[in-house]
Amino acid sequence: MDTVCLNGEFLPLSQAMVSVTDAGFLLGDGVFETMRAEEGHPLFPADHFARLARGARSLGIAVPCEPEELLAWCEQVLDANGLTDARMRVTLTRGPVRSQPIAEREGAPALAVTATPLDPRLGEERAQGWRLAVAPHLRNERSPLASIKATSYLESLLARRYARAHGFDEALLLNTVGAVAEGAMANVFAVRDERISTPPAADGALPGTMRARILKLAAAAGWDAREESLSLEDLLAADEVFLTNAIMEVMPVVGIGERLVAAGLPGPAAKALQAAWRAEARKFLAARRQ
Amino acid sequence: MDTVCLNGEFLPLSQAMVSVTDAGFLLGDGVFETMRAEEGHPLFPADHFARLARGARSLGIAVPCEPEELLAWCEQVLDANGLTDARMRVTLTRGPVRSQPIAEREGAPALAVTATPLDPRLGEERAQGWRLAVAPHLRNERSPLASIKATSYLESLLARRYARAHGFDEALLLNTVGAVAEGAMANVFAVRDERISTPPAADGALPGTMRARILKLAAAAGWDAREESLSLEDLLAADEVFLTNAIMEVMPVVGIGERLVAAGLPGPAAKALQAAWRAEARKFLAARRQ
Repeated sequence: MDTVCLNGEFLPLSQAMVSVTDAGFLLGDGVFETMRAEEGHPLFPADHFARLARGARSLGIAVPCEPEELLAWCEQVLDANGLTDARMRVTLTRGPVRSQPIAEREGAPALAVTATPLDPRLGEERAQGWRLAVAPHLRNERSPLASIKATSYLESLLARRYARAHGFDEALLLNTVGAVAEGAMANVFAVRDERISTPPAADGALPGTMRARILKLAAAAGWDAREESLSLEDLLAADEVFLTNAIMEVMPVVGIGERLVAAGLPGPAAKALQAAWRAEARKFLAARRQ
Repeated sequence: MDTVCLNGEFLPLSQAMVSVTDAGFLLGDGVFETMRAEEGHPLFPADHFARLARGARSLGIAVPCEPEELLAWCEQVLDANGLTDARMRVTLTRGPVRSQPIAEREGAPALAVTATPLDPRLGEERAQGWRLAVAPHLRNERSPLASIKATSYLESLLARRYARAHGFDEALLLNTVGAVAEGAMANVFAVRDERISTPPAADGALPGTMRARILKLAAAAGWDAREESLSLEDLLAADEVFLTNAIMEVMPVVGIGERLVAAGLPGPAAKALQAAWRAEARKFLAARRQ
Protein backbone atom coordinates (compact mmCIF):
# COMPACT_ATOMS: atom_id res chain seq x y z
CA MET A 1 0.00 0.00 0.00
CA ASP A 2 2.30 2.75 -1.30
CA THR A 3 -0.28 4.79 -3.17
CA VAL A 4 -3.68 5.72 -1.77
CA CYS A 5 -6.57 7.47 -3.48
CA LEU A 6 -7.97 10.14 -1.18
CA ASN A 7 -10.92 12.15 -2.51
CA GLY A 8 -9.83 11.42 -6.06
CA GLU A 9 -6.19 12.38 -5.53
CA PHE A 10 -3.47 9.75 -5.81
CA LEU A 11 -1.02 10.21 -2.98
CA PRO A 12 1.93 8.40 -1.47
CA LEU A 13 0.74 6.69 1.73
CA SER A 14 2.84 9.07 3.85
CA GLN A 15 0.81 12.01 2.49
CA ALA A 16 -2.63 10.40 2.64
CA MET A 17 -3.90 12.12 5.77
CA VAL A 18 -7.24 13.23 7.19
CA SER A 19 -7.98 15.90 9.76
CA VAL A 20 -8.04 14.98 13.46
CA THR A 21 -11.52 16.56 13.35
CA ASP A 22 -12.75 14.00 10.80
CA ALA A 23 -15.90 12.37 12.16
CA GLY A 24 -14.50 9.00 11.15
CA PHE A 25 -11.47 9.49 13.39
CA LEU A 26 -13.40 11.07 16.27
CA LEU A 27 -16.64 9.09 16.28
CA GLY A 28 -16.49 6.13 13.91
CA ASP A 29 -18.99 8.04 11.76
CA GLY A 30 -18.51 6.42 8.37
CA VAL A 31 -18.97 3.32 6.23
CA PHE A 32 -16.62 1.02 4.41
CA GLU A 33 -16.39 -1.85 1.95
CA THR A 34 -13.76 -4.56 1.60
CA MET A 35 -13.49 -6.07 -1.88
CA ARG A 36 -11.47 -8.75 -3.55
CA ALA A 37 -9.71 -7.67 -6.74
CA GLU A 38 -8.34 -10.00 -9.41
CA GLU A 39 -6.62 -9.28 -12.72
CA GLY A 40 -6.69 -5.58 -11.84
CA HIS A 41 -10.48 -5.40 -11.23
CA PRO A 42 -12.54 -5.42 -8.04
CA LEU A 43 -14.99 -8.34 -8.23
CA PHE A 44 -18.64 -7.31 -8.50
CA PRO A 45 -18.04 -3.71 -7.47
CA ALA A 46 -21.71 -2.79 -7.99
CA ASP A 47 -22.68 -5.02 -5.03
CA HIS A 48 -20.24 -3.18 -2.79
CA PHE A 49 -20.94 0.32 -4.05
CA ALA A 50 -24.69 -0.20 -3.59
CA ARG A 51 -24.22 -1.22 0.04
CA LEU A 52 -21.82 1.68 0.62
CA ALA A 53 -24.38 4.11 -0.81
CA ARG A 54 -27.18 2.55 1.27
CA GLY A 55 -25.17 2.86 4.49
CA ALA A 56 -24.06 6.40 3.66
CA ARG A 57 -27.64 7.42 2.90
CA SER A 58 -28.91 6.07 6.19
CA LEU A 59 -26.17 8.04 8.00
CA GLY A 60 -26.78 11.19 5.95
CA ILE A 61 -23.30 11.15 4.38
CA ALA A 62 -23.12 12.21 0.72
CA VAL A 63 -21.17 9.86 -1.56
CA PRO A 64 -18.85 12.35 -3.28
CA CYS A 65 -18.55 10.49 -6.60
CA GLU A 66 -20.40 8.34 -9.12
CA PRO A 67 -19.94 4.53 -9.07
CA GLU A 68 -18.06 4.67 -12.40
CA GLU A 69 -15.58 7.16 -10.97
CA LEU A 70 -15.11 5.13 -7.80
CA LEU A 71 -14.46 2.02 -9.86
CA ALA A 72 -11.87 3.87 -11.95
CA TRP A 73 -10.15 5.04 -8.74
CA CYS A 74 -10.06 1.44 -7.47
CA GLU A 75 -8.49 0.19 -10.69
CA GLN A 76 -5.97 3.06 -10.69
CA VAL A 77 -5.00 2.29 -7.08
CA LEU A 78 -4.35 -1.34 -8.05
CA ASP A 79 -2.28 -0.20 -10.99
CA ALA A 80 -0.30 2.39 -9.03
CA ASN A 81 0.60 -0.29 -6.46
CA GLY A 82 1.56 -2.86 -9.09
CA LEU A 83 -1.15 -5.21 -7.80
CA THR A 84 -3.52 -7.31 -9.89
CA ASP A 85 -4.98 -9.45 -7.08
CA ALA A 86 -5.64 -7.54 -3.88
CA ARG A 87 -7.73 -6.83 -0.86
CA MET A 88 -9.26 -3.40 -1.48
CA ARG A 89 -10.91 -1.11 0.99
CA VAL A 90 -13.13 1.90 0.34
CA THR A 91 -13.68 4.07 3.42
CA LEU A 92 -16.16 6.96 3.43
CA THR A 93 -16.56 9.22 6.48
CA ARG A 94 -18.57 12.34 7.22
CA GLY A 95 -15.46 14.52 7.10
CA PRO A 96 -14.49 17.29 9.55
CA VAL A 97 -17.11 18.10 12.18
CA ARG A 98 -17.46 21.08 14.42
CA SER A 99 -18.91 19.59 17.54
CA GLN A 100 -19.43 16.06 18.68
CA PRO A 101 -23.01 15.86 19.93
CA ILE A 102 -24.64 16.89 16.68
CA ALA A 103 -21.60 16.45 14.46
CA GLU A 104 -22.46 19.15 11.97
CA ARG A 105 -20.37 18.75 8.90
CA GLU A 106 -18.00 21.62 8.22
CA GLY A 107 -16.20 20.22 5.17
CA ALA A 108 -16.37 17.54 2.51
CA PRO A 109 -16.63 13.81 3.31
CA ALA A 110 -13.38 11.83 3.22
CA LEU A 111 -13.21 8.93 0.77
CA ALA A 112 -10.10 6.73 0.80
CA VAL A 113 -9.31 3.76 -1.47
CA THR A 114 -6.47 1.40 -0.55
CA ALA A 115 -5.18 -1.92 -1.85
CA THR A 116 -3.00 -4.51 -0.10
CA PRO A 117 -1.90 -8.00 -1.21
CA LEU A 118 -4.31 -10.85 -0.50
CA ASP A 119 -3.32 -13.15 2.35
CA PRO A 120 -1.54 -16.03 0.55
CA ARG A 121 -2.58 -18.52 3.25
CA LEU A 122 -6.30 -18.27 2.47
CA GLY A 123 -6.29 -21.10 -0.08
CA GLU A 124 -4.61 -23.50 2.32
CA GLU A 125 -6.91 -22.43 5.16
CA ARG A 126 -9.90 -23.09 2.95
CA ALA A 127 -8.65 -26.63 2.38
CA GLN A 128 -8.29 -27.23 6.13
CA GLY A 129 -11.27 -25.25 7.45
CA TRP A 130 -11.53 -22.76 10.28
CA ARG A 131 -12.30 -23.20 13.95
CA LEU A 132 -14.66 -20.74 15.63
CA ALA A 133 -14.72 -19.47 19.20
CA VAL A 134 -18.12 -18.48 20.57
CA ALA A 135 -17.63 -14.80 21.42
CA PRO A 136 -18.23 -13.91 25.08
CA HIS A 137 -20.26 -10.88 24.00
CA LEU A 138 -23.46 -10.66 22.02
CA ARG A 139 -24.34 -9.02 18.72
CA ASN A 140 -27.17 -6.53 19.22
CA GLU A 141 -29.51 -7.46 16.39
CA ARG A 142 -31.57 -4.38 17.25
CA SER A 143 -28.68 -1.95 16.86
CA PRO A 144 -29.10 0.67 14.14
CA LEU A 145 -25.67 -0.49 12.97
CA ALA A 146 -26.64 -4.16 12.53
CA SER A 147 -27.29 -3.67 8.83
CA ILE A 148 -24.65 -0.98 8.15
CA LYS A 149 -20.98 -1.75 7.50
CA ALA A 150 -19.89 1.16 9.67
CA THR A 151 -16.40 2.26 10.66
CA SER A 152 -17.59 2.00 14.29
CA TYR A 153 -16.23 -1.53 13.97
CA LEU A 154 -14.57 -2.13 17.31
CA GLU A 155 -17.06 -4.74 18.57
CA SER A 156 -16.30 -6.97 15.58
CA LEU A 157 -12.59 -6.35 15.94
CA LEU A 158 -12.68 -7.31 19.63
CA ALA A 159 -14.55 -10.52 18.85
CA ARG A 160 -12.02 -11.47 16.17
CA ARG A 161 -9.11 -10.61 18.50
CA TYR A 162 -10.70 -12.69 21.26
CA ALA A 163 -10.86 -15.69 18.92
CA ARG A 164 -7.28 -15.27 17.74
CA ALA A 165 -6.00 -14.81 21.29
CA HIS A 166 -7.62 -18.14 22.22
CA GLY A 167 -6.17 -20.09 19.30
CA PHE A 168 -9.24 -19.92 17.03
CA ASP A 169 -9.56 -18.45 13.54
CA GLU A 170 -12.75 -16.45 13.91
CA ALA A 171 -15.48 -15.66 16.43
CA LEU A 172 -19.12 -16.74 16.23
CA LEU A 173 -21.53 -14.11 17.53
CA LEU A 174 -24.89 -14.95 19.06
CA ASN A 175 -27.52 -12.24 19.34
CA THR A 176 -29.40 -10.97 22.40
CA VAL A 177 -31.98 -13.76 22.21
CA GLY A 178 -29.37 -16.50 21.82
CA ALA A 179 -29.71 -17.11 18.07
CA VAL A 180 -26.70 -17.20 15.75
CA ALA A 181 -26.06 -13.77 14.18
CA GLU A 182 -22.82 -14.05 12.20
CA GLY A 183 -19.07 -14.33 12.45
CA ALA A 184 -17.13 -11.27 13.60
CA MET A 185 -16.23 -10.53 9.98
CA ALA A 186 -18.21 -13.08 7.95
CA ASN A 187 -21.69 -14.50 7.47
CA VAL A 188 -22.52 -18.02 8.65
CA PHE A 189 -24.28 -20.83 6.74
CA ALA A 190 -25.44 -24.27 7.87
CA VAL A 191 -26.09 -27.24 5.60
CA ARG A 192 -28.70 -29.69 6.93
CA ASP A 193 -29.97 -32.45 4.63
CA GLU A 194 -30.55 -30.64 1.34
CA ARG A 195 -31.19 -27.30 3.03
CA ILE A 196 -28.72 -24.42 3.19
CA SER A 197 -29.64 -21.75 5.76
CA THR A 198 -28.17 -18.45 6.89
CA PRO A 199 -29.53 -16.16 9.63
CA PRO A 200 -31.81 -13.33 8.44
CA ALA A 201 -30.78 -9.69 8.85
CA ALA A 202 -33.28 -9.45 11.72
CA ASP A 203 -31.08 -11.86 13.70
CA GLY A 204 -28.11 -9.51 13.41
CA ALA A 205 -26.49 -10.70 10.18
CA LEU A 206 -24.84 -8.01 8.06
CA PRO A 207 -26.24 -8.22 4.51
CA GLY A 208 -23.00 -9.59 3.04
CA THR A 209 -22.41 -9.29 -0.68
CA MET A 210 -21.01 -12.83 -0.77
CA ARG A 211 -23.88 -14.08 1.40
CA ALA A 212 -26.38 -12.86 -1.22
CA ARG A 213 -24.42 -14.43 -4.08
CA ILE A 214 -23.99 -17.75 -2.30
CA LEU A 215 -27.70 -17.92 -1.48
CA LYS A 216 -28.45 -17.46 -5.20
CA LEU A 217 -25.79 -19.91 -6.34
CA ALA A 218 -27.02 -22.53 -3.87
CA ALA A 219 -30.61 -22.14 -5.09
CA ALA A 220 -29.45 -22.36 -8.70
CA ALA A 221 -27.61 -25.59 -7.87
CA GLY A 222 -30.80 -27.18 -6.54
CA TRP A 223 -30.44 -26.69 -2.79
CA ASP A 224 -33.29 -25.39 -0.68
CA ALA A 225 -31.44 -22.15 0.16
CA ARG A 226 -33.06 -19.77 2.63
CA GLU A 227 -32.73 -17.21 5.36
CA GLU A 228 -33.65 -18.91 8.62
CA SER A 229 -32.85 -18.45 12.30
CA LEU A 230 -30.17 -20.83 13.55
CA SER A 231 -29.15 -21.85 17.05
CA LEU A 232 -25.68 -22.86 18.18
CA GLU A 233 -27.07 -26.40 18.50
CA ASP A 234 -28.22 -26.27 14.86
CA LEU A 235 -24.66 -25.46 13.82
CA LEU A 236 -23.16 -28.19 16.00
CA ALA A 237 -25.56 -30.76 14.55
CA ALA A 238 -25.29 -29.59 10.92
CA ASP A 239 -23.87 -31.66 8.07
CA GLU A 240 -21.66 -28.68 7.29
CA VAL A 241 -21.07 -25.12 8.43
CA PHE A 242 -19.26 -22.48 6.42
CA LEU A 243 -18.49 -18.77 6.49
CA THR A 244 -18.57 -16.29 3.62
CA ASN A 245 -17.16 -12.87 2.95
CA ALA A 246 -15.81 -11.08 -0.10
CA ILE A 247 -12.16 -11.70 0.78
CA MET A 248 -12.05 -15.31 1.94
CA GLU A 249 -15.01 -16.42 -0.19
CA VAL A 250 -16.42 -19.74 1.15
CA MET A 251 -14.57 -20.93 4.25
CA PRO A 252 -15.51 -24.32 5.75
CA VAL A 253 -15.91 -24.46 9.54
CA VAL A 254 -14.54 -27.62 11.14
CA GLY A 255 -14.95 -26.77 14.81
CA ILE A 256 -16.82 -24.51 17.23
CA GLY A 257 -15.18 -24.17 20.63
CA GLU A 258 -13.98 -27.64 21.61
CA ARG A 259 -16.63 -29.39 19.49
CA LEU A 260 -16.05 -30.73 16.01
CA VAL A 261 -18.35 -29.63 13.22
CA ALA A 262 -19.05 -32.09 10.40
CA ALA A 263 -16.57 -34.56 11.91
CA GLY A 264 -13.82 -31.93 11.64
CA LEU A 265 -13.55 -32.03 7.85
CA PRO A 266 -14.45 -29.48 5.15
CA GLY A 267 -17.58 -30.70 3.39
CA PRO A 268 -18.77 -31.06 -0.18
CA ALA A 269 -21.34 -28.22 -0.14
CA ALA A 270 -18.74 -25.60 0.80
CA LYS A 271 -16.42 -26.97 -1.86
CA ALA A 272 -19.12 -26.99 -4.52
CA LEU A 273 -20.27 -23.46 -3.68
CA GLN A 274 -16.68 -22.18 -3.68
CA ALA A 275 -16.28 -23.71 -7.17
CA ALA A 276 -19.59 -22.18 -8.32
CA TRP A 277 -18.50 -18.81 -6.99
CA ARG A 278 -15.11 -19.09 -8.74
CA ALA A 279 -16.92 -19.85 -12.01
CA GLU A 280 -19.06 -16.72 -11.52
CA ALA A 281 -15.95 -14.63 -10.76
CA ARG A 282 -14.22 -15.98 -13.89
CA LYS A 283 -17.24 -15.06 -15.97
CA PHE A 284 -17.23 -11.55 -14.50
CA LEU A 285 -13.52 -11.13 -15.26
CA ALA A 286 -13.92 -12.47 -18.81
CA ALA A 287 -16.59 -9.81 -19.41
CA ARG A 288 -14.28 -7.12 -18.02
CA ARG A 289 -11.49 -8.21 -20.39
CA GLN A 290 -13.64 -7.57 -23.45
CA MET B 1 -10.10 25.29 17.62
CA ASP B 2 -7.14 26.82 15.81
CA THR B 3 -4.36 24.92 17.57
CA VAL B 4 -4.41 21.19 18.22
CA CYS B 5 -1.95 19.08 20.20
CA LEU B 6 -1.14 15.93 18.24
CA ASN B 7 1.29 13.51 19.86
CA GLY B 8 2.80 16.33 21.89
CA GLU B 9 3.21 18.70 18.94
CA PHE B 10 1.24 21.93 18.78
CA LEU B 11 -0.09 22.38 15.26
CA PRO B 12 -2.48 24.66 13.42
CA LEU B 13 -5.74 22.77 12.87
CA SER B 14 -5.08 22.62 9.11
CA GLN B 15 -1.89 20.63 9.77
CA ALA B 16 -3.25 18.32 12.48
CA MET B 17 -3.67 15.22 10.36
CA VAL B 18 -3.59 11.45 10.88
CA SER B 19 -2.94 8.69 8.36
CA VAL B 20 -5.85 7.18 6.45
CA THR B 21 -4.48 3.88 7.81
CA ASP B 22 -5.03 4.99 11.41
CA ALA B 23 -7.12 2.34 13.17
CA GLY B 24 -9.25 5.12 14.64
CA PHE B 25 -10.21 6.32 11.16
CA LEU B 26 -10.62 2.84 9.66
CA LEU B 27 -12.19 0.89 12.52
CA GLY B 28 -13.17 3.17 15.40
CA ASP B 29 -10.35 1.52 17.35
CA GLY B 30 -9.67 4.09 20.04
CA VAL B 31 -10.91 5.80 23.20
CA PHE B 32 -11.72 9.37 24.09
CA GLU B 33 -12.59 11.71 26.92
CA THR B 34 -14.59 14.92 26.92
CA MET B 35 -13.76 17.33 29.73
CA ARG B 36 -14.96 20.69 30.92
CA ALA B 37 -12.23 23.27 31.44
CA GLU B 38 -12.54 26.45 33.49
CA GLU B 39 -10.02 29.18 34.29
CA GLY B 40 -7.54 27.44 31.98
CA HIS B 41 -7.73 24.04 33.73
CA PRO B 42 -9.62 20.85 32.88
CA LEU B 43 -11.85 19.95 35.84
CA PHE B 44 -10.82 16.78 37.67
CA PRO B 45 -8.53 15.55 34.91
CA ALA B 46 -7.44 12.53 36.97
CA ASP B 47 -10.98 11.07 36.70
CA HIS B 48 -10.84 11.34 32.93
CA PHE B 49 -7.25 10.18 32.47
CA ALA B 50 -7.90 7.10 34.63
CA ARG B 51 -10.88 6.09 32.49
CA LEU B 52 -8.91 6.77 29.30
CA ALA B 53 -6.07 4.55 30.56
CA ARG B 54 -8.53 1.83 31.62
CA GLY B 55 -10.19 1.79 28.21
CA ALA B 56 -6.85 1.89 26.38
CA ARG B 57 -5.55 -0.99 28.49
CA SER B 58 -8.55 -3.14 27.75
CA LEU B 59 -8.07 -2.47 24.02
CA GLY B 60 -4.31 -3.05 24.19
CA ILE B 61 -3.45 0.53 23.19
CA ALA B 62 -0.45 2.06 24.94
CA VAL B 63 -1.02 5.54 26.41
CA PRO B 64 1.98 7.39 24.97
CA CYS B 65 2.43 9.87 27.84
CA GLU B 66 2.20 10.32 31.59
CA PRO B 67 -0.91 11.97 33.09
CA GLU B 68 1.16 15.04 34.09
CA GLU B 69 2.30 15.50 30.52
CA LEU B 70 -1.22 15.05 29.14
CA LEU B 71 -2.52 17.63 31.61
CA ALA B 72 0.19 20.08 30.54
CA TRP B 73 -0.78 19.54 26.88
CA CYS B 74 -4.44 20.24 27.73
CA GLU B 75 -3.56 23.48 29.50
CA GLN B 76 -1.27 24.53 26.64
CA VAL B 77 -4.03 23.85 24.10
CA LEU B 78 -6.39 26.08 26.09
CA ASP B 79 -3.74 28.77 26.24
CA ALA B 80 -2.84 28.54 22.54
CA ASN B 81 -6.53 28.95 21.63
CA GLY B 82 -7.07 31.86 24.01
CA LEU B 83 -9.70 29.86 25.92
CA THR B 84 -10.13 29.65 29.68
CA ASP B 85 -13.51 27.86 29.74
CA ALA B 86 -13.84 25.13 27.14
CA ARG B 87 -15.03 21.75 26.03
CA MET B 88 -11.88 19.65 25.71
CA ARG B 89 -11.48 16.34 23.98
CA VAL B 90 -8.64 13.84 24.25
CA THR B 91 -8.70 11.17 21.54
CA LEU B 92 -6.35 8.18 21.60
CA THR B 93 -6.31 5.63 18.77
CA ARG B 94 -4.22 2.58 17.99
CA GLY B 95 -2.41 4.41 15.18
CA PRO B 96 -1.62 3.06 11.69
CA VAL B 97 -2.51 -0.60 11.13
CA ARG B 98 -1.39 -3.00 8.46
CA SER B 99 -4.43 -5.17 8.03
CA GLN B 100 -7.95 -4.91 9.26
CA PRO B 101 -8.80 -8.33 10.65
CA ILE B 102 -6.09 -8.43 13.25
CA ALA B 103 -5.15 -4.77 13.10
CA GLU B 104 -1.49 -5.21 13.95
CA ARG B 105 0.00 -1.90 14.90
CA GLU B 106 2.70 -0.64 12.57
CA GLY B 107 3.33 2.75 14.14
CA ALA B 108 2.75 4.83 17.26
CA PRO B 109 -0.74 5.51 18.66
CA ALA B 110 -2.31 8.86 17.76
CA LEU B 111 -3.21 11.18 20.63
CA ALA B 112 -5.05 14.41 19.85
CA VAL B 113 -6.11 17.15 22.28
CA THR B 114 -8.59 19.81 21.14
CA ALA B 115 -10.52 22.63 22.83
CA THR B 116 -13.65 24.43 21.66
CA PRO B 117 -15.81 27.04 23.41
CA LEU B 118 -18.50 25.74 25.75
CA ASP B 119 -22.04 25.94 24.42
CA PRO B 120 -23.33 29.22 25.94
CA ARG B 121 -26.91 27.93 25.98
CA LEU B 122 -26.23 25.21 28.56
CA GLY B 123 -27.01 27.42 31.59
CA GLU B 124 -30.36 28.44 30.18
CA GLU B 125 -31.17 24.87 29.15
CA ARG B 126 -30.37 23.73 32.68
CA ALA B 127 -32.92 26.24 34.01
CA GLN B 128 -35.60 24.91 31.64
CA GLY B 129 -34.76 21.19 31.60
CA TRP B 130 -34.42 18.78 28.71
CA ARG B 131 -36.94 16.54 27.00
CA LEU B 132 -35.91 12.99 26.11
CA ALA B 133 -36.99 10.79 23.22
CA VAL B 134 -36.99 7.05 23.86
CA ALA B 135 -34.51 5.77 21.25
CA PRO B 136 -35.95 3.22 18.80
CA HIS B 137 -32.85 1.06 19.24
CA LEU B 138 -31.46 -0.64 22.31
CA ARG B 139 -28.19 -0.32 24.18
CA ASN B 140 -26.45 -3.70 24.33
CA GLU B 141 -25.51 -3.90 27.98
CA ARG B 142 -23.49 -7.04 27.16
CA SER B 143 -21.33 -5.34 24.53
CA PRO B 144 -17.60 -5.28 25.30
CA LEU B 145 -17.88 -1.55 24.60
CA ALA B 146 -20.58 -0.87 27.22
CA SER B 147 -17.98 0.22 29.78
CA ILE B 148 -15.45 1.77 27.37
CA LYS B 149 -15.73 5.29 26.00
CA ALA B 150 -14.67 4.15 22.54
CA THR B 151 -14.41 6.12 19.31
CA SER B 152 -16.75 3.49 17.78
CA TYR B 153 -19.39 5.96 18.88
CA LEU B 154 -21.88 5.88 16.02
CA GLU B 155 -24.71 4.16 17.93
CA SER B 156 -24.76 6.97 20.49
CA LEU B 157 -24.50 9.58 17.78
CA LEU B 158 -27.45 8.06 15.89
CA ALA B 159 -29.55 8.02 19.05
CA ARG B 160 -28.77 11.68 19.73
CA ARG B 161 -29.46 12.61 16.11
CA TYR B 162 -32.77 10.72 16.26
CA ALA B 163 -33.79 12.74 19.32
CA ARG B 164 -32.80 16.07 17.77
CA ALA B 165 -34.54 15.23 14.49
CA HIS B 166 -37.77 14.63 16.43
CA GLY B 167 -37.61 17.86 18.41
CA PHE B 168 -36.12 16.42 21.61
CA ASP B 169 -32.88 17.35 23.37
CA GLU B 170 -31.45 13.89 24.04
CA ALA B 171 -32.28 10.21 23.64
CA LEU B 172 -33.01 7.74 26.42
CA LEU B 173 -31.63 4.27 25.73
CA LEU B 174 -33.17 1.10 27.12
CA ASN B 175 -31.12 -2.09 27.20
CA THR B 176 -31.87 -5.50 25.72
CA VAL B 177 -34.02 -6.55 28.70
CA GLY B 178 -36.00 -3.31 28.73
CA ALA B 179 -34.27 -1.57 31.65
CA VAL B 180 -33.01 2.00 31.43
CA ALA B 181 -29.32 2.10 30.41
CA GLU B 182 -28.41 5.76 29.94
CA GLY B 183 -28.81 8.77 27.70
CA ALA B 184 -27.04 8.73 24.33
CA MET B 185 -24.32 10.94 25.81
CA ALA B 186 -25.15 11.19 29.50
CA ASN B 187 -25.99 9.11 32.56
CA VAL B 188 -29.53 9.08 33.96
CA PHE B 189 -30.66 9.52 37.58
CA ALA B 190 -34.09 9.22 39.19
CA VAL B 191 -35.16 10.81 42.48
CA ARG B 192 -37.88 8.90 44.33
CA ASP B 193 -38.77 9.94 47.91
CA GLU B 194 -35.37 10.44 49.51
CA ARG B 195 -33.64 7.97 47.18
CA ILE B 196 -31.43 8.88 44.24
CA SER B 197 -30.79 6.00 41.83
CA THR B 198 -28.80 5.50 38.64
CA PRO B 199 -28.56 2.30 36.56
CA PRO B 200 -25.56 0.07 37.32
CA ALA B 201 -22.85 -0.54 34.71
CA ALA B 202 -24.33 -4.03 34.20
CA ASP B 203 -27.47 -2.37 32.78
CA GLY B 204 -25.41 -0.64 30.09
CA ALA B 205 -24.49 2.63 31.80
CA LEU B 206 -21.08 4.05 30.92
CA PRO B 207 -19.16 4.71 34.14
CA GLY B 208 -19.41 8.49 33.84
CA THR B 209 -16.99 10.66 35.79
CA MET B 210 -19.81 13.04 36.71
CA ARG B 211 -22.07 10.10 37.57
CA ALA B 212 -19.52 8.93 40.18
CA ARG B 213 -19.12 12.43 41.64
CA ILE B 214 -22.86 13.05 41.81
CA LEU B 215 -23.45 9.71 43.56
CA LYS B 216 -20.90 10.75 46.19
CA LEU B 217 -22.21 14.30 46.55
CA ALA B 218 -25.77 12.99 46.92
CA ALA B 219 -24.71 10.54 49.64
CA ALA B 220 -22.77 13.30 51.41
CA ALA B 221 -25.89 15.49 51.33
CA GLY B 222 -27.92 12.81 53.11
CA TRP B 223 -29.74 11.13 50.23
CA ASP B 224 -29.92 7.38 49.92
CA ALA B 225 -27.80 7.35 46.72
CA ARG B 226 -27.33 4.06 44.93
CA GLU B 227 -26.86 2.12 41.72
CA GLU B 228 -30.15 0.40 40.96
CA SER B 229 -31.95 -0.88 37.88
CA LEU B 230 -34.64 1.50 36.64
CA SER B 231 -37.52 1.00 34.26
CA LEU B 232 -39.03 3.60 31.97
CA GLU B 233 -42.08 3.53 34.27
CA ASP B 234 -39.81 4.31 37.24
CA LEU B 235 -38.58 7.41 35.43
CA LEU B 236 -42.07 8.51 34.44
CA ALA B 237 -43.27 8.15 38.04
CA ALA B 238 -40.19 9.70 39.67
CA ASP B 239 -40.20 12.93 41.69
CA GLU B 240 -37.35 14.07 39.46
CA VAL B 241 -35.15 12.77 36.66
CA PHE B 242 -31.85 14.29 35.62
CA LEU B 243 -28.90 13.61 33.35
CA THR B 244 -25.22 14.08 34.07
CA ASN B 245 -22.07 14.38 32.04
CA ALA B 246 -18.85 16.33 32.37
CA ILE B 247 -19.89 19.05 29.94
CA MET B 248 -23.48 19.81 30.86
CA GLU B 249 -23.10 18.82 34.53
CA VAL B 250 -26.56 18.20 36.07
CA MET B 251 -29.36 18.60 33.53
CA PRO B 252 -32.98 18.29 34.75
CA VAL B 253 -35.31 16.20 32.59
CA VAL B 254 -38.84 17.60 32.25
CA GLY B 255 -40.30 15.20 29.71
CA ILE B 256 -39.88 11.76 28.15
CA GLY B 257 -41.64 11.33 24.84
CA GLU B 258 -45.01 13.04 25.14
CA ARG B 259 -45.15 12.50 28.91
CA LEU B 260 -44.21 15.12 31.47
CA VAL B 261 -41.65 14.23 34.10
CA ALA B 262 -41.98 15.85 37.54
CA ALA B 263 -44.87 17.98 36.27
CA GLY B 264 -42.61 19.41 33.58
CA LEU B 265 -40.47 21.48 35.92
CA PRO B 266 -36.80 21.20 36.98
CA GLY B 267 -36.70 19.91 40.53
CA PRO B 268 -34.90 20.79 43.76
CA ALA B 269 -32.59 17.73 43.87
CA ALA B 270 -31.06 18.48 40.47
CA LYS B 271 -30.62 22.10 41.50
CA ALA B 272 -29.05 21.19 44.84
CA LEU B 273 -26.67 18.67 43.26
CA GLN B 274 -25.68 21.13 40.54
CA ALA B 275 -24.85 23.63 43.30
CA ALA B 276 -22.91 21.00 45.29
CA TRP B 277 -20.98 20.09 42.14
CA ARG B 278 -20.21 23.76 41.42
CA ALA B 279 -18.87 24.12 44.97
CA GLU B 280 -16.63 21.10 44.40
CA ALA B 281 -15.41 22.54 41.09
CA ARG B 282 -14.68 25.90 42.74
CA LYS B 283 -12.66 24.13 45.44
CA PHE B 284 -10.70 22.24 42.77
CA LEU B 285 -9.95 25.46 40.88
CA ALA B 286 -8.92 27.27 44.08
CA ALA B 287 -6.40 24.51 44.76
CA ARG B 288 -5.08 24.80 41.19
CA ARG B 289 -4.60 28.53 41.61
CA GLN B 290 -2.25 28.06 44.56
